Amino acid sequence: MSFAILQEKIDEKKNPTVMGLDPKLEYIPAHIADKAIKDFGRTKKAAGEALFEFGKGLIDACHDLVPAVKPQMAYYEMYGTYGIKALHKTVEYAKSKNLYVILDGKRGDIGETAKAYSAAYLGETDIFGESCEMLSADCLTVNPYLGIDGVRPFIDNCEKFGKAIFVLVKTSNASSGDFQDIIVDGAPFYERVARKILEWGRIENVGAVVGATYPEQLAELRKIMPRTFFLVPGFGAQGGSAADVKPAFDENGRGAIVNSSRAIMCAWQKRGEGANFGKWAREEVEHMRDAIYG
Amino acid sequence: MSFAILQEKIDEKKNPTVMGLDPKLEYIPAHIADKAIKDFGRTKKAAGEALFEFGKGLIDACHDLVPAVKPQMAYYEMYGTYGIKALHKTVEYAKSKNLYVILDGKRGDIGETAKAYSAAYLGETDIFGESCEMLSADCLTVNPYLGIDGVRPFIDNCEKFGKAIFVLVKTSNASSGDFQDIIVDGAPFYERVARKILEWGRIENVGAVVGATYPEQLAELRKIMPRTFFLVPGFGAQGGSAADVKPAFDENGRGAIVNSSRAIMCAWQKRGEGANFGKWAREEVEHMRDAIYG
Repeated sequence: MSFAILQEKIDEKKNPTVMGLDPKLEYIPAHIADKAIKDFGRTKKAAGEALFEFGKGLIDACHDLVPAVKPQMAYYEMYGTYGIKALHKTVEYAKSKNLYVILDGKRGDIGETAKAYSAAYLGETDIFGESCEMLSADCLTVNPYLGIDGVRPFIDNCEKFGKAIFVLVKTSNASSGDFQDIIVDGAPFYERVARKILEWGRIENVGAVVGATYPEQLAELRKIMPRTFFLVPGFGAQGGSAADVKPAFDENGRGAIVNSSRAIMCAWQKRGEGANFGKWAREEVEHMRDAIYG
Repeated sequence: MSFAILQEKIDEKKNPTVMGLDPKLEYIPAHIADKAIKDFGRTKKAAGEALFEFGKGLIDACHDLVPAVKPQMAYYEMYGTYGIKALHKTVEYAKSKNLYVILDGKRGDIGETAKAYSAAYLGETDIFGESCEMLSADCLTVNPYLGIDGVRPFIDNCEKFGKAIFVLVKTSNASSGDFQDIIVDGAPFYERVARKILEWGRIENVGAVVGATYPEQLAELRKIMPRTFFLVPGFGAQGGSAADVKPAFDENGRGAIVNSSRAIMCAWQKRGEGANFGKWAREEVEHMRDAIYG
């Protein structure tokens, strides 16, 4: 759904944060893993089951507090077909709780192939003459390295189905500067990407990923893209603070959503109390909300 | 497996081409689709079944001629969980025919997440204490936009499991120049990427994607990366010719593999004869081999 819908949900919950779901088995409390093993043995199927139950538990605990969830596809893909099934079920469950779903897949390819990814995650696939949703989310993250014909098919489905994308501009990782910070005509490469994004799409449905770990660049990019919606990863476990993400928001405190994954998912590990993982996730979400909106 | 193994297979088959598998339902002959619909109705399951049977038929027809196959993940992902199952079965089948499998997923993310993708497609995943292969191929395509900490986890598994990656340098699509051709200190951006790849990995297992549709750049990159293995997409349906791909090879005619997908998969459509799709695919493969190696 377009960013207007996301902003509505943020306003309603008074919380501009998204709960990232990066569910490795090692993050999952023992009672969930044990139940899955009891039902299905120490199998890939049990792993998929545990993945879903963990995500469901986090959603149950936090859905009244957060406007959105961001499943990171890599962690589900890592568990093979059962992981993918868990992803599908998790997305369905999040939708049933009226959450905005940002699929974090960072997909990007040449035009014809980008069309296939776009059909998979934002649009519909033709199944013997009938158009079917496959794993349709509200929003997908997209890698811009292949240029506009690798991004256009995603924008097309945003327009057609009222969806949105976040295009990678300045990522939160330590080595994001390897290419993104290279100076081109006196300005960093990521600024070029930012300006292209403004040309390519409408701010209603084409946003930008800008890491919390680079607050100066975040402020710079907010100036270049004053009305573009930002997805801000890197808060919490990666080191970004509430002060760091301030520049992401516009003058009305809107137009951005901040992600935290491990700090929420693994809040129970600090307490050594897996049985109450939902309670500790909830506390972390409240803490994050108050820090950012406080 | 490392590029030495790929080169061995190329030498053995006397054919430096890879059969790309981008199986949309519209490319699949009627008898395969009809059989799947008869068995499972007009369902997603039938679509997955047809996808696998088509890929299997192409492999059966061409496995003695080609050293490698390159399943494009997007086309399988487009068909949801049944598509992913078809991908798994297709990779297994290709391995059983002793083909080198290049998974084309163009994955890339921050370090922790890249680890998950790397486990999924090149390594192993811990399932309740046991390391398991999930969809382990010989080789994966990787997007470099996030810098070295997004690529390192793939290189690590290349070293550990004897696998390989192709990193995107100059892609074959029309708009690849949007970012890749931006001039930085007098040279195009893709040259920066090429030089970083040489720093990051060993030529034994870190190759480069360079499009057939840009023969001059291909020649330039061959000079910069004289011993790096090249994956060359863009031959055939995308417009690249045998003359265009010549500069990809080293002075001994080695060190590169050229992909063709649609021209092989859809060769039967030109003849209007789906029942013999394997025969026409085979003819196209021979034609391509002779054009490139002739």
